[in-house]
This record gives sequence, structure tokens and C-alpha cells, in this order.
Amino acid sequence: MNAVDTLILGGTILCLDEQMTQIQDGALAIVGDTIAAVGTAEALRRQFSSQNIIDGKNTLIMPGLINSHTHAAMTCFRGIADDMNLMDWLNDYIFPAEARNVDPELAYWGSMLACAEMIKSGTTSFCDMYIFEDETARAAQEAGMRCLLGEVLFDFPSPNYQTPQEGLAYTRRLLERWAGDPLIRIAVEPHSLYTCSRPLLMEAIKLADEFEVPLALHLLENASEKQQLKEKLGQGAVAYLKDLGCLNERLIAFHGVYLDEGDIGTFRDHGCKVVYNPESNMKLASGFAPVSRMLKAGIRVGLGTDGCASNNNLDMFQAMDTAAKLEKAINLDPTLMPAPTVVAMATREGAHVLGMEQITGCLRPQLKADLIMIDLKSPHLTPMYNPYSQLVYAANGADVKTVFINGKMVMKDRRLLTLNEEKIMAKVCQIAGRISHSLKGTL
Amino acid sequence: MNAVDTLILGGTILCLDEQMTQIQDGALAIVGDTIAAVGTAEALRRQFSSQNIIDGKNTLIMPGLINSHTHAAMTCFRGIADDMNLMDWLNDYIFPAEARNVDPELAYWGSMLACAEMIKSGTTSFCDMYIFEDETARAAQEAGMRCLLGEVLFDFPSPNYQTPQEGLAYTRRLLERWAGDPLIRIAVEPHSLYTCSRPLLMEAIKLADEFEVPLALHLLENASEKQQLKEKLGQGAVAYLKDLGCLNERLIAFHGVYLDEGDIGTFRDHGCKVVYNPESNMKLASGFAPVSRMLKAGIRVGLGTDGCASNNNLDMFQAMDTAAKLEKAINLDPTLMPAPTVVAMATREGAHVLGMEQITGCLRPQLKADLIMIDLKSPHLTPMYNPYSQLVYAANGADVKTVFINGKMVMKDRRLLTLNEEKIMAKVCQIAGRISHSLKGTL
Repeated sequence: MNAVDTLILGGTILCLDEQMTQIQDGALAIVGDTIAAVGTAEALRRQFSSQNIIDGKNTLIMPGLINSHTHAAMTCFRGIADDMNLMDWLNDYIFPAEARNVDPELAYWGSMLACAEMIKSGTTSFCDMYIFEDETARAAQEAGMRCLLGEVLFDFPSPNYQTPQEGLAYTRRLLERWAGDPLIRIAVEPHSLYTCSRPLLMEAIKLADEFEVPLALHLLENASEKQQLKEKLGQGAVAYLKDLGCLNERLIAFHGVYLDEGDIGTFRDHGCKVVYNPESNMKLASGFAPVSRMLKAGIRVGLGTDGCASNNNLDMFQAMDTAAKLEKAINLDPTLMPAPTVVAMATREGAHVLGMEQITGCLRPQLKADLIMIDLKSPHLTPMYNPYSQLVYAANGADVKTVFINGKMVMKDRRLLTLNEEKIMAKVCQIAGRISHSLKGTL
Repeated sequence: MNAVDTLILGGTILCLDEQMTQIQDGALAIVGDTIAAVGTAEALRRQFSSQNIIDGKNTLIMPGLINSHTHAAMTCFRGIADDMNLMDWLNDYIFPAEARNVDPELAYWGSMLACAEMIKSGTTSFCDMYIFEDETARAAQEAGMRCLLGEVLFDFPSPNYQTPQEGLAYTRRLLERWAGDPLIRIAVEPHSLYTCSRPLLMEAIKLADEFEVPLALHLLENASEKQQLKEKLGQGAVAYLKDLGCLNERLIAFHGVYLDEGDIGTFRDHGCKVVYNPESNMKLASGFAPVSRMLKAGIRVGLGTDGCASNNNLDMFQAMDTAAKLEKAINLDPTLMPAPTVVAMATREGAHVLGMEQITGCLRPQLKADLIMIDLKSPHLTPMYNPYSQLVYAANGADVKTVFINGKMVMKDRRLLTLNEEKIMAKVCQIAGRISHSLKGTL
């Protein structure tokens, strides 16, 4: 008998490995931050002992969800303005609200709130872009969440820097400060092709290449962007990226709604990644990403919620439900985006997108123990014929009962163990009061 | 000081009346089954006393949600088959599963499970069509839920009857048995124009007219139905209904995805009602109902989930979220279906659709006390700038804390007071085992 730190016994395990292994009456052993074994309860009970045995009966045990596109601190702007044209939304609300209010305090507490919300809805890793990302990194570290994050870079001044050079220098400091951290990884994140000049993009690419980290940016989110880029660049966006020399397996494109067949082929050939954000794309009326065609071409596609000003929550279960249904609806084909594909997108494929496939995204020995347990004893999850269908079409974030990240339990029976929810909510309400006041006459 | 049975003090009240009245630090008084007063906490504290004071602080208080299209007992088939073509889904799974398994026991326990799920996600009224509806009526009565329901009628035999005449006779017995019930109302419900002959439809219309109750049917759910009807009837579906003489304010059409401009005008002119089921329409790849155009024309449109085999839950918060986002996405217009419109559709407008606008659907004196309290103290509901946005884009069914129907508390702090959840889930799991067995080789 080997002693392990934690032994989960019972429950249905979805491994989300390439074979989509499913284990009835399963068990999982954790040693330190790592999965030591996954198998049947019968087998693991004979092999392992533990001081910390968790009852998995009536739960579904699966890898933690990976939210591959967030602006965590924007929880502070959740629902501040909805149901309006993109330019009104940006110019009258989001940009002034950000310019007048975003500071390290907002970034920190907004990110803390995001971490609380994400853990409570089963997300264990996220990929973030925003301002003062060192604060987001600190929040994720305190929460015990895994993430890939980067400071947003653009040509104009941000609340965090006056010049793009300062933004790049801040990113370099992030890369140095968080190097080797068990949970926090840094990416280089130019905002988009319409907000970043060629020199800035080239510097960003150089930095990402130097540290061998992902380069992540918004790409072809809506039709007017596509049109605008064509005029500005005199060539297609993907051709432009190719010329810049950044099409490789470390490129992460958020949205990619207007990638055409040629772009998809180019992305596939270079191993570039895409993050699909169906709820945000719907709410902002951006268009429909060609997600089935990207998958068919063999592109790795992750799933994201986008920020809370454009969704307005971070619940990956809703993102999965929408991802599965939307593709069926717009193609009038109910066989597209079947539930297992969507669950893989929110777990294993997300890990590939973030370059973390050797760390997380499925349940197998040697990967880090990032996993969630879903309480199946609820009217809306009864009966269960197919666990993937249940996850995608019936469950919601509140069904997540217990969460482990990097071997550590961060939520038990819906109680957060690393974060003080009350305090975080009180702080964000204070900040929201300040934001409302700053928009007086507008709101 | 007037003594009232229940006095809710504190919280934000959304009345959902035509003026969309919103009350900060509000209060609501209940006497018997009826709302006695709605106002500020300050005013009602001076006017009323009660032995039963409910603290509304940090909650949103609003009318209970109205799910205007369900097949309640189909919870037993939740997720039994997904991601497949409609005809495969129906012929290989749903029809054989129903033919081999639907009996009064399934209808009763499936409906009990649906009631548990609906109350737990804030639904207080529903409009149901299925088989053995007397069992559904009994379940709703036990649960203390308000409903409009009817036995599904079609030309071929059902598990409940051999001939359409028997189906009509069963409906008449329902109408007589439940006459005057405080919660249960009966409608006449021919399944659709493609499953009901002209004589059956005429009998059904006569019966609905005799009792002055709604006539509810599926209408123009998908393109192949539209095509098929054109061939079968030699005229458009709405023109056919007009000839039959059933276009009036008691007609409820489920779906109406393929209503064209002319149909919309005809529906408006006759005061006919429509129920929009965006999640079901997406999942089954049915198409997109012209919901904005119907609203603009002045048609009363309610919101529904459809049955659990085609959604796969009864959560009206998800239905609201999808309703708001889908219309924006397909029209590339983020101003369509704003959050307040969607919340009204799920409450007041639903009551109009079911002919219950004098009973429920908004919070004002003299209406029945059907209301829900939503716990706002959650990370994903923090901060709150706009309560309608929060309800539609951020909340989910699990945020509902307390539910009153007809003046009676049926859920308190998420504990069901009228139903034994454990027992219901155990019974449905048994039935699901029987269903799986009956499809052996298929599933």
C-alpha cells in the first residue's frame, strides 16, 4: 500500500484524454501537486492508502475547466452597459470607465472576484489580458489558480503606461518576476492589429521569441475590424502576421470570427491556436466563428467567456452550452459540435492552446492535479444517460462541488478555501460605486 | 397597522408591470394567496405588521418566471440522445422510448421531477403538453405550482388512448375535473398540423370554444414541417388555421419559427400568442424565430424551454440569456432584445400568452403572490449596475433562494417545502433504468 496525499474514491471519472476514457466507480490518487493514479475505486483501494479520503459518490470527476480568454478585472464593469452598439458601448461606457477608474487596486480586486467566480464555476486555469496584470498574477497566486496572462499592449497610453515601450518593459518584468512559478505563466499580449503599430508588434514578437512564451492577441473579431485592417494593412490580417514572422505554435488568436478558408489553412499549417468565445460574439453581434471548419482542419481551438463587460459572467458551463447549440443552429445541422467535442475544447484542447498540455487539461498520471467534482444529485441533473450531454446541456457552474488545483483543494462543498468571498465582494462594490460616480450623467 | 400573512422587507423589487417599476429597499405584503401591497420598506413597515417577516436584504424580488412551453414528464428522457439528426433522434430514440415506457407512473414522477427543477430555478408557472396530463396536474398540485396544461392530441394511438376520440374525451374529463382549481388550468392541445387531421382539429377547436380555454399547438417549428404542410394542406399553415376559425386571443402557437410577414400580421390582427423556445430551436437546428419582428408587430410572445429531451434543462435563466443573445447575433445588431424585454417575456408577457394576466406575471396588488427572491450575494452577481442585465446575462437558476406561489412559500433558502427531492430523484432513476433497458442495443 502506497500512502498518497489525497485519494478520491467513487464517482464517474471523465479523463478527457485523447481516448476519452470514462471510468465508472472510479478513483484518483494525488501526491503533492500531481496525479499519481487514475483507475477504478476497486483497483486504487487495493494500491493506495491516504489520510485524506474524499468521497466521490454521486459526483462526476473531470479535469478543471480552462477559460482560454478572459479580462479578469473587468468583473468590476459587469453589466455596466448592455444591449447597445459596439461603438457607443466602447466610447460612452467602457473606455471612459476604464480611463477614469482602472488602477492597481481595481485590477487586483476585480481579479480576485474573477478568481472566486471561476473557482465556484469549475474553472481551474485561465488566460488573461488586461491592465496591471501583475495584480492579476498576485490574485491568481492567492486564489491558487493556474493562468497564462499578459499585459495588454497598444500604441496609445494605458492607465499603466504612457508609451508602448513602457508596456513592453512591464511585460519583460512580468516575465522575469514570475519565471518558474508553479501556477503563473506570462505571455506577450499585443491587443490587436488595429491598436498596435508594426514596430510595436515586432518588438512584442521578439520578446515572446526571446522567452519562448505565447504571443496572444485579438484577431478578426468582427466585420468592421476586418474591413479596417484590409484598408490599413493593404493585405489580409493573417498574411500580415505571416510577414511579421509570428505564425507558429505559440500564437494564440482570440475570436478569429472572420478567418476565411485560406486563413484556416495557414493557421493549421503553422500550428496556430484559436480561442472561441461564442457568448461574447453573440452579445456583441460580432458574427459566427467558423469553429467546425477550424476543428475539421485540425486547428486546436479553446473556449473562452471573454470579459464580464461582454458576456456577463465567467461560467464555462454556459459557454459550453452555447458553443454546442450555436454551431448547430447557424448551420442547420444538429450533429455539429457534439457534447464530447465541446467538453474537450473546454479542457484538453484549452491546455494545448495555452501551451500547457504537459501540465493540465486531462486526468492522467504525471499531470498536475487540476480537477473538479460535480454534484450529480440535483433534479436538473437527473437522470443521467450520458455524462457529456449532462455537462454541456444541463449543468451549470453552481453544480461544481469541489475543486482541486495543482493538488490543492481550493473549494470544498462550495466553500472557497483560499479566498474570502465576503471581503472581495465588499471591496468590488466599493470600487463599483466609484465607477458609477465617475460616469454620472452617463449611467 | 394591518396584519398580513407575510411581509417581505428590504431588497430590490422589479414589479415587471407595464411601467417596469423598480423599487429600491422595497417591501411586499401578502394576504392569503394575494399580493396586498408593494412599495418601499419604509412605507409598508408603517402600514403592515406580520408574524411572518422575511428579510429581503441583498435579494432581487420579482414575479416568478413563466415557462410557456414544456413537456414536463420528459425529464425522464433528459439527454437520452443528443447531437443527431431530427429524424434519427425521433425514430431511433424518442418515439420507441416513449412507446415502450410512457405510462401514468412515468408521467407522474417525471412531472414531479420537472416541478422540483422548475421551482429550484425560479419558475412558478408552466404551460405543458404531454401524455397522461392528469398525472402532471396532480404533480403540479402537490408541488403547489401554477400551470396550464393539456393532453397531447394526434391521429395515431398514444400510450394513453387508442383513438383521437378517446383523447378528446380525456381532455373533456380534465376540463371538468380541474374546473375552478386555484392552480391548475386546462387547455385543449392538438400536437400540430402535421399530426392532426382536419376533423380532429375541428373537434379540438369546438371543445376549446365550449370551455373558453386556450387552444395550444406546435406550429411551424422547422423548415421541413413548413414544406410538408404546404404540400398536405395546399395552403399556408396560418391560412389553414384561419379557415378552421381558431385564430383568436386563445390560440397559443409553440415555436412559430417559420411564421412569415403575412402570418405575423394575421397573428397580430387576431390577438394570437406565440411561445419562443430559442434553446430548443438551436439544439434541434430548427431555425430562428422572427421574435423581434413579432414583438414589433405587437404580438404577445412568451418564453419557453421546451422539453428536457431537446434543451436539456428547464432553467428559464438560460432561456433568457439565449433569447437576448441569439437575436443580436443573427441580426448583427446588439441593440435587439434588450434585457428588460427578455425579462418581461419570461414573466408578464408569458402570463398574457397563457391567458393569466389577471392572475400572475407581475407584482401588483390583487394579483396572486407568485414571486421569487434571488440571492445577490454571489461573486458572479457582483457588482450590480443594472438588475435586468444581471438577471439575463449573469444569473442562473441556482441563484433563486426563495419562491412563493399563490401566497405559499414552496422553497426557502433553496430547500423545497412541498416536494421530497430525494424520493423523486430515486423514482426517476428507477424509471430511467427501465427506459435504458427498453432501448438495449440502441443506447
